[in-house]
Amino acid sequence: MNNNIITLGHGSGCALTRRLIDSVFRSRFQMPTLDDSAALRGRAVISTDAHVIKPLFFPGGDIGKLSISGTVNDIAVCGAVPEFITAALIIEEGFPIADLERIADSMQKEATKAGVKIIAGDTKVVERGQADGLYIVTTGVGYLPEGVETGSHLVCKGDSILVNGTIGDHAVAIINAREEMELEPAPESDCASLQNLTAALIATGHVRFMRDATRGGVVTVLNELSEDAKLGIIIDEEKLPVTSTTKAVCGLLGLDPLYLANEGKLVAVVNGNTKPVVNAMRQTDTGRNSVVIGRVTDEVQGVYLRTSIGSLRRLFMPESDPLPRIC
Amino acid sequence: MNNNIITLGHGSGCALTRRLIDSVFRSRFQMPTLDDSAALRGRAVISTDAHVIKPLFFPGGDIGKLSISGTVNDIAVCGAVPEFITAALIIEEGFPIADLERIADSMQKEATKAGVKIIAGDTKVVERGQADGLYIVTTGVGYLPEGVETGSHLVCKGDSILVNGTIGDHAVAIINAREEMELEPAPESDCASLQNLTAALIATGHVRFMRDATRGGVVTVLNELSEDAKLGIIIDEEKLPVTSTTKAVCGLLGLDPLYLANEGKLVAVVNGNTKPVVNAMRQTDTGRNSVVIGRVTDEVQGVYLRTSIGSLRRLFMPESDPLPRIC
Repeated sequence: MNNNIITLGHGSGCALTRRLIDSVFRSRFQMPTLDDSAALRGRAVISTDAHVIKPLFFPGGDIGKLSISGTVNDIAVCGAVPEFITAALIIEEGFPIADLERIADSMQKEATKAGVKIIAGDTKVVERGQADGLYIVTTGVGYLPEGVETGSHLVCKGDSILVNGTIGDHAVAIINAREEMELEPAPESDCASLQNLTAALIATGHVRFMRDATRGGVVTVLNELSEDAKLGIIIDEEKLPVTSTTKAVCGLLGLDPLYLANEGKLVAVVNGNTKPVVNAMRQTDTGRNSVVIGRVTDEVQGVYLRTSIGSLRRLFMPESDPLPRIC
Repeated sequence: MNNNIITLGHGSGCALTRRLIDSVFRSRFQMPTLDDSAALRGRAVISTDAHVIKPLFFPGGDIGKLSISGTVNDIAVCGAVPEFITAALIIEEGFPIADLERIADSMQKEATKAGVKIIAGDTKVVERGQADGLYIVTTGVGYLPEGVETGSHLVCKGDSILVNGTIGDHAVAIINAREEMELEPAPESDCASLQNLTAALIATGHVRFMRDATRGGVVTVLNELSEDAKLGIIIDEEKLPVTSTTKAVCGLLGLDPLYLANEGKLVAVVNGNTKPVVNAMRQTDTGRNSVVIGRVTDEVQGVYLRTSIGSLRRLFMPESDPLPRIC
């Protein structure tokens, strides 16, 4: 690979992206972390997200819904209540206004569902061939309730790791739509706003860390967490929730659901008894299939999978995501 | 023109853009105005801007500098003190990392100058041919000092209209660079952060309204103001500050500097004696050539130019900007 130019992997959200951000941006800017969110004054939190998903419309959502839920989730996993969104659109000349209206409808529908207001925007148009239809950048602002604190620095050995349902569904829906695999019924993206789920998690008083598992999948979140918390993580293959469709597509294409992007799934780390936490998660619309998938430990360094036959397999941070333009 | 598809004019920031935003976005979202800025909780203000300028590097700046100063200015003309910036980058595969570093340097240099911190970001990469090198969306957050209020609703007949220097310089620099006119010396963009100027204006206690005159130029700002305030505006041709280069290029290409984009110029409306206000503006680095160019009146409706021979000529809101991809 040519080290002097940008590759698709630099946009994968995985190791390549982290190194690029670290060397080009974080070394120059005042970014406290490599993340897309940061604290403002007082208890305000901000997060920004560029959406370049292809195709623009897919089973379970479209770029409009995704642009709202993606940013809502970035704010929500900070433990904050998302309140305001701005949207900047870069539109290709010749884009159908009917599609733009459909996307705007979808944005507002999701904003209503998530309890956020879209309060400002910017519209730019570029010549034919200079954008793939439409890109949307959303920025969200939310407020941390008094007393709420989460983060990798709070994670301890013995804590449990949970996810709120089946993994890899977004990526599989996009693969099916993009590659015209014509699976029947078409697999749906899990694209959803998670603010009710994160609020329920926080209300239990047991949550130490939350992160949405988008580009790079659950493995990328776990590796970042393991690195930041300087603790090991072991997850159980048998406990991982995966739909039969996702299993089949992954088997066919040689993919692993742990590495695939989700748009309505988060990884949560909680302390103490997990039963009341799982119950609380399952009360919410996006948490019905919540399960414990593993635990934090000091017995290993890095992230490991305990396979169904009982052996441990290292799950490395991926260099790149197998699918560009996934969100 | 086909009314069902997006045209370059929809991104011009002029009448076409306003109608599109009004019909597609404002009708659905909770946008208080058609602007790119809005109020958050407390005294916080947010603004978002997509930057798609072509070429990426130009005399007087580059897309990095512009992405910071453009957003700083949107916040500053609200009367607020810009504090934080987020940046989302959409990069074309194959983009030279050296150029990205140069642009990041430029962003940080301008951020330091403007007193803002770049605190979070997102990086996406699209395939070759799917973005024209690089697009940058910046979102800024600032805070309104206690007691500061500005806006078109405060503008009264008899108020004076000021600009902080020569108009049209940004557009002329871009035309020269893009069309390879090879003017010597190459005209420079006025691209600059105006937070010192807006602070000086506010400190006078006489400012009623401020707006940066970007896409669509001074005429677009004045028409929006006239419409919102329901008052007429008359500006004096003889008082308009225009460089000889801008005059020459405009003469050659049949353009009018009043309609050209600026990136370091604002329109301010002030009440009372203008002398102390102009003096205060001239003390700042970006206000040295500040002048009164006209006044608010109820003698006319809309915006008029008093020509050098004394007649009045209507200056209509432009449908579109003559130059796409100007910012």
